[in-house]
Amino acid sequence: MNKETVLNVEKSLDPEDWSALKELGHRMLDDMFEYLQTVRDRPIWAKPSNFAVASMNQPLPKLPQDAAEVYGEFFTQVLPFNNNNTHPRFWAWVQGGGTPFGMLADMLASGMNPNVSLGDHMPMHVESQVIEWSKKMMGFPDSASGLLVSGASIANITALIVARNHFNKDIKKKGLRAVPAQMIVYGSAETHNCVAKGVEVIGIGSDNFRKVPVDEQYRVRVDELRRMIREDREAGNLPFCIIGNAGTVNTGSTDPLEELAAVAKEENLWYHIDGAFGAIPKILPEFSKQLKGIELADSLSFDYHKWMYVNYEVACVLIRDKNVHREAFSVAVNYLAMHERGLSGGPDSFTNYGMELSRGFKALKVWMSLKENGILKYAEMVRQNLRQAQYLAELVRQNTTLELLADVPLNIVCYRFNPGGISDSELNRINKEILMRLHEEGIAAPSYTLLNGKYAIRAAITNHRSRLEDFDVLVKETVRLGNELIA
Amino acid sequence: MNKETVLNVEKSLDPEDWSALKELGHRMLDDMFEYLQTVRDRPIWAKPSNFAVASMNQPLPKLPQDAAEVYGEFFTQVLPFNNNNTHPRFWAWVQGGGTPFGMLADMLASGMNPNVSLGDHMPMHVESQVIEWSKKMMGFPDSASGLLVSGASIANITALIVARNHFNKDIKKKGLRAVPAQMIVYGSAETHNCVAKGVEVIGIGSDNFRKVPVDEQYRVRVDELRRMIREDREAGNLPFCIIGNAGTVNTGSTDPLEELAAVAKEENLWYHIDGAFGAIPKILPEFSKQLKGIELADSLSFDYHKWMYVNYEVACVLIRDKNVHREAFSVAVNYLAMHERGLSGGPDSFTNYGMELSRGFKALKVWMSLKENGILKYAEMVRQNLRQAQYLAELVRQNTTLELLADVPLNIVCYRFNPGGISDSELNRINKEILMRLHEEGIAAPSYTLLNGKYAIRAAITNHRSRLEDFDVLVKETVRLGNELIA
Repeated sequence: MNKETVLNVEKSLDPEDWSALKELGHRMLDDMFEYLQTVRDRPIWAKPSNFAVASMNQPLPKLPQDAAEVYGEFFTQVLPFNNNNTHPRFWAWVQGGGTPFGMLADMLASGMNPNVSLGDHMPMHVESQVIEWSKKMMGFPDSASGLLVSGASIANITALIVARNHFNKDIKKKGLRAVPAQMIVYGSAETHNCVAKGVEVIGIGSDNFRKVPVDEQYRVRVDELRRMIREDREAGNLPFCIIGNAGTVNTGSTDPLEELAAVAKEENLWYHIDGAFGAIPKILPEFSKQLKGIELADSLSFDYHKWMYVNYEVACVLIRDKNVHREAFSVAVNYLAMHERGLSGGPDSFTNYGMELSRGFKALKVWMSLKENGILKYAEMVRQNLRQAQYLAELVRQNTTLELLADVPLNIVCYRFNPGGISDSELNRINKEILMRLHEEGIAAPSYTLLNGKYAIRAAITNHRSRLEDFDVLVKETVRLGNELIA
Repeated sequence: MNKETVLNVEKSLDPEDWSALKELGHRMLDDMFEYLQTVRDRPIWAKPSNFAVASMNQPLPKLPQDAAEVYGEFFTQVLPFNNNNTHPRFWAWVQGGGTPFGMLADMLASGMNPNVSLGDHMPMHVESQVIEWSKKMMGFPDSASGLLVSGASIANITALIVARNHFNKDIKKKGLRAVPAQMIVYGSAETHNCVAKGVEVIGIGSDNFRKVPVDEQYRVRVDELRRMIREDREAGNLPFCIIGNAGTVNTGSTDPLEELAAVAKEENLWYHIDGAFGAIPKILPEFSKQLKGIELADSLSFDYHKWMYVNYEVACVLIRDKNVHREAFSVAVNYLAMHERGLSGGPDSFTNYGMELSRGFKALKVWMSLKENGILKYAEMVRQNLRQAQYLAELVRQNTTLELLADVPLNIVCYRFNPGGISDSELNRINKEILMRLHEEGIAAPSYTLLNGKYAIRAAITNHRSRLEDFDVLVKETVRLGNELIA
């Protein structure tokens, strides 16, 4: 190889014309600010056009395409057909809407491009700071540990692995055959499905996730839980973990968390709380009693991208006992060995606390957002959503053609159009049609669930852009569509 | 509640002064372009200052802080102390350096803020397009399925879950106790530790990951593999999965992938290939023979943020049989039920193909990058890195005080300073010290491993900014430091 020849042709993926790409970047930034600033003026949803969908069925690109042209395709074919959780009338599933500052933080994180996994660099310390703040927010002790992950699914799986491996020290190396009988997890029938999926992932099997019946407020029945644990022990099974819910996905119910802690303690079981969104009111003094139980948990999951409104994706798992956490995931291999000095030094590797070795700089947007707003501002926004949920519930109660299908203990409102004299199955059909038209007409995007067989239009309010007037629109248009459908 | 009163105080997390934040955004963008354009002018590494580290030990912020001030802290305390895989002389671990265009794509993705999990919106289609392109790149059939994930760790775990659940259809619901004997996974002793960790995660236990011995080129010995499978069967164990390595982490070796495919077929085992970085040369015609085996695998993992240089984090897992993939992860719950129309319609949910329900828009940067560069440009960059590895190896061979510690079949070069007459243990101490000084003096950031007990300085070249001259620097400075240390 002739070095001189090769040098002449050495290339990179950096732009040949930096200023042209920078100019394009500025245009993108202006466009995104315009997009976010005007989100209220657009319909909540627009079905992706046939042209846009067809544009995602192209052959693998062989040759380079002009960057501005690529952006043009994004601008015309992707951006207009967002899932729109940025919109003030998005209350589907449970998704926060992000912020412009969070978007900028993600740009910085992506430009820096660190793998926040090991080594002596500041992104490692930023994530540690975010974990420390997370512990404070949730009343976990200073000695606890934690990790940022993609969402509550991975957070729950991470906690389940710690719980499983802690139950029997042989499981990590020898697998579940090291355990002489079937291990069992308990949680209410309203527990989010990602927990059952996690129980599948870790090899326990979802049949061994006991769905404990709930009371009329969709909270776990502790007497039933005790009975099921007793029956399992009598049958020779091995109970090892209780899942408490801070905010169920269907109705926002919160289990009696302190009572569950007491059961877990008595029975010597791991106590995990899935607080994907419902743990967030822990930052409000007025929830200190109801969410006291969080401080008693062995582990906790919650999302920053839901009710903390941080941009997708970022969640947190906290583990009370750092050593137990580390034992579940730590590895010792030559190519990851720590050094005393240099880039290969630094804090304990995050890979010792979770499944991932590749980890982007999710921490930056959380760190910057928490600083930008301060926890008191978040408290204010969460209270605003709580008030809005009560406001919507009240609008529903006051309307004779609408029916509230569940109590509203938090930020989720389940209701249906029900003018009377129509069968449940017919109401299910009508309300599903109402929901689809609310979307199609670009009015509002609640989502749905089934409660005792009844189709519920479900507004999950983790939206910092919503105003009371938006709920007026939802109610008015639900009634209009319902009346049109029965006319 | 008095609506008028409340309306007056309704707030959001959007900026009160949009133009001020936009201006700050433009400044950030200018700064990041400057940062990336001048990366070559800076030292490869600087130890985080005490002041910077101390700045990450603050109380949870209560009150809002000015956005520009928060950015100022980022700019002075975080950005200067990056892990610096963006630098042309970063060859530590295996990390790509990202691109400015990828950074912009991440800004767009974060601003849109979709949860790319379910629903009828374009981000779902963008990810599908990226999966289709990934299949083409890797020679997987049109009927295959795939998913974008955070990195090869999660990609490998995802594939292992599919393999495990496919082996016995009862595992998903009933857990591993449904299987009458111990399930066993096989892979070479050089397999990345994340596979053993994955075997722990899914409940099989890392003792049941059989580390098959390797030959002198660090490739799995197929005869040993056959013997170990036979012995396991004789012992009553249940072999179910073979892991092939396309590019091992220590030396970049590639197992005889077609032979492994033949063994898997004969033995009726799942065949997974960990191709974190080493699968990427599949896009080069000259590797078509060596990487032919990829087309025979049941599943494949590879990273986009390593040798495709896409910004952190994004990787891909491909599964040959879409139905088997879906069976392993699919869920059916009311609150995720698909509708015929509206936002709740759309393509099959990605949550049916993996562990996550919260999923950011990682697909956008891959889609935009593949279009911006075209696959031929990537092929050119990968060839450039391959040439650089050979160039470095040749420099090492030609220097009498350096020793090449392994063949260089791909992009990884393992060498040490060894002027002769020094014991291995002393050489280990000296070479570790050389590595730490290369970092501390800001010269270059290779990393390290142990090969047959010998400490190796290891350059993993997945860097689109490296030039031949950078390797001249590495060699010259290694020799200088070595000589200083023995003087």
